[in-house]
Amino acid sequence: MNEKSLYPLFHPQSIALVGLPRGLKSGKVFLLGLLDQGFQGPIYPIHPDAAEIDGLKAYARLSDIPGSVDMAIVMSPGETVMQVLKECAQKKVKDVVLYTSGFAESGVQEGLQQEKAMSNLARTGGFRILGPNCMGVYSPASGLAPFPGMSRVSGPIGFLSQSGSLTTLFANICTQHSLHFQHIVSYGNSCDVDFPELLDWMAEDTSVSLVCSYLEGVKDSASLSASLRKIAGRKPLIMWKVGQTEAGRRAAASHTGSLAGPNHLWQSVFRQYGISVVSDIESMLDVVMAFSHIHNPKNGRVAIISGPGGPAVSAADSAQMCGLAVPSLEDRSLDKLRRILPASGTSLKNPIDVGLAASFDLKYYLDTLEVVIKDANIDAVFILGGGASPEMADEYVEGIIRIRKTNDKPLIAVSYPGFPSTQHADEKLLKSNIPVYPTPERALRAYASVVKFARYRKSRAII
Amino acid sequence: MNEKSLYPLFHPQSIALVGLPRGLKSGKVFLLGLLDQGFQGPIYPIHPDAAEIDGLKAYARLSDIPGSVDMAIVMSPGETVMQVLKECAQKKVKDVVLYTSGFAESGVQEGLQQEKAMSNLARTGGFRILGPNCMGVYSPASGLAPFPGMSRVSGPIGFLSQSGSLTTLFANICTQHSLHFQHIVSYGNSCDVDFPELLDWMAEDTSVSLVCSYLEGVKDSASLSASLRKIAGRKPLIMWKVGQTEAGRRAAASHTGSLAGPNHLWQSVFRQYGISVVSDIESMLDVVMAFSHIHNPKNGRVAIISGPGGPAVSAADSAQMCGLAVPSLEDRSLDKLRRILPASGTSLKNPIDVGLAASFDLKYYLDTLEVVIKDANIDAVFILGGGASPEMADEYVEGIIRIRKTNDKPLIAVSYPGFPSTQHADEKLLKSNIPVYPTPERALRAYASVVKFARYRKSRAII
Repeated sequence: MNEKSLYPLFHPQSIALVGLPRGLKSGKVFLLGLLDQGFQGPIYPIHPDAAEIDGLKAYARLSDIPGSVDMAIVMSPGETVMQVLKECAQKKVKDVVLYTSGFAESGVQEGLQQEKAMSNLARTGGFRILGPNCMGVYSPASGLAPFPGMSRVSGPIGFLSQSGSLTTLFANICTQHSLHFQHIVSYGNSCDVDFPELLDWMAEDTSVSLVCSYLEGVKDSASLSASLRKIAGRKPLIMWKVGQTEAGRRAAASHTGSLAGPNHLWQSVFRQYGISVVSDIESMLDVVMAFSHIHNPKNGRVAIISGPGGPAVSAADSAQMCGLAVPSLEDRSLDKLRRILPASGTSLKNPIDVGLAASFDLKYYLDTLEVVIKDANIDAVFILGGGASPEMADEYVEGIIRIRKTNDKPLIAVSYPGFPSTQHADEKLLKSNIPVYPTPERALRAYASVVKFARYRKSRAII
Repeated sequence: MNEKSLYPLFHPQSIALVGLPRGLKSGKVFLLGLLDQGFQGPIYPIHPDAAEIDGLKAYARLSDIPGSVDMAIVMSPGETVMQVLKECAQKKVKDVVLYTSGFAESGVQEGLQQEKAMSNLARTGGFRILGPNCMGVYSPASGLAPFPGMSRVSGPIGFLSQSGSLTTLFANICTQHSLHFQHIVSYGNSCDVDFPELLDWMAEDTSVSLVCSYLEGVKDSASLSASLRKIAGRKPLIMWKVGQTEAGRRAAASHTGSLAGPNHLWQSVFRQYGISVVSDIESMLDVVMAFSHIHNPKNGRVAIISGPGGPAVSAADSAQMCGLAVPSLEDRSLDKLRRILPASGTSLKNPIDVGLAASFDLKYYLDTLEVVIKDANIDAVFILGGGASPEMADEYVEGIIRIRKTNDKPLIAVSYPGFPSTQHADEKLLKSNIPVYPTPERALRAYASVVKFARYRKSRAII
């Protein structure tokens, strides 16, 4: 198996929807997704007795289609799947996205045997299978989406997911944060195409600069190691690996028939290959956002500028807990800050507490930021605060963006809950390459992942 | 020191604002807060040469005020504070809220000595000091607030904070989640009134049913132990204790002059007194929300109902990691679910995967919930999902609320990011006593705190 063979999976010229329902049932999402993305090639609904579905001419079987079919998205009932796959081979379909479920994850021996038979058929029939029990490919540049309502904007992120729903849920939350994908693949039970091969594809694809993943288990650990070795240090790899507990392993088995594998082995895999580990959708978003905006983390010495004192103290704790340093500023910065900030109710020790007065007079925040971002002891600046009113919140954001343009040191904003804000404040920051987080603890953990990856990359370069 | 002596701090009949600025400077928030809350008693601005401030008659000094003064909020410059405190004693002020900062937290020996002199003066002068370096009391029932824009609705939550800004920030985020406070106290450097005494007050106050806290350090560990012993098991106590690292300890010292204390001692305090530990504003909100809505956690056996499969697997992991069990349902529930749910693309094993189809046909979610909530193997139900459109999202929420009314077993909703939703969906759930979280991981951790407290309470009742 060569990763080149996955090319048609991401660039099909024609698609058949086998078993597409007439009404608004769950399978209809595949058609709605393609229409929504404006898929350019022909779409062929296959239905035993419909003449047309949603205005598209329908065919009784694959062999009735006049032209060639690159991809077949199959949602037929389980008992008919083997027959459909045989027809796919006859029609010289290149890829099958098999939505139908009820195989290995059903927990009965027969399900596993059926998957084996499917993968044999794929090999002899000259096509590849994604799934079963999967949603397939989202790739806006090719007009592919398994759900309607997904962004049409392409970006540099790749996402590999054993959960089909997560493809649309995670894409939607990323879109809200101005983060865009090149490809998302839901690959379910992975009877043929599995994580390692997909990861190889993402590693080679020059339009993908970082890869995140939701994983329940991988069948072939040798292929996994080989693929991880290839991508390690080249592109950031973010992994949400579930099945860490007995309850999680049982749930993974019922969901995709996966064997989650022993925890300690995964822990050593994470370390060995410099993988950024996340544990829920929020931390995956946080880390993807950090890698998307921060490309030059010099090192882990951070400055924390804050109006509220309590969150700043907690931020200092968080920084140290995730391996970052909170050093003192240079003397000349301290001299400048002494002229900027009031003597009482503030602190020049890092975290730099600009005091309550800063919410009423934003120059305390902004002049401080201007000094700190230039400090040679500091590799990245975190700023937490805001104005006393929505108007001042806007002014604060504009000020940060202005300073961002004068210096390319990583600058991270914390949009702390409870501060007055305007609807588009975060959006403006993100558009200016300033990642923004609800809490300093989340911001620091995400930044630490980027620093850790940079160190890993450097250590490999030395070897 | 007797906790009765704190009564006037929460119920002042008249307030002097000593050093109130004329313009919109930070000290002005105290006046704006009182006006915003509609404080009923007289407010006396004290200013060396203003005749009036914002329409209120101003006085040159405390002794010029015709009536008595219960509370003096002092924001005068540091060098004048001792003189002001002497005048407070002469005027028979009962409580001083000392906003002025620059004492112990400045790190110079003189600051500590000044605080000692202040507390001596308070003792001999017959008044109490909150602070210095604090924002004082929020208590909507008494018309007290240190910031404008805080809710005027009273509730059963108490909050003790060494950070002044957190009082308004945390109150604002709680208000957005329909959670309301009886009292919030920002007590800063605590030269006189400290955490233990305030905690005793909260333990005795029958209008407070749970207490959360942001803590940097406590001066007198004997008083702390005594206070914790009194509240332990009686009311939930949630603690965000910072200063866990060297960087955090330095930051705490610069913020409130606190000695954070060794970590391992705090860890044993948390265990010994059944304290719920949180580590940021989000986890504090999560746990406060859980305690506010869940009063009868029978035990830790949870059911997870989900449309998306991936988040459900991760939820199972989280449940087990925080000490909860994810058991099988009763046979009769399984029989019922077999009749409700499609055979493929779903799982009846807990987590109960209702499949993608449920987003198009909400009865899969709601009929399943109706069965599971009655299951005798299950102590609490978590439901994650939603409809395929905003209209269906509303229908989904209404359905959950309807079922909530038929059964008082803890029911927790997860409003997962990426699902279509309407603005008021979460609000409706919260108003119906259904706590709602963005992720199942956060929901389960918060619920686990409530279960842990119930177990702790039970273990103490046995002893």
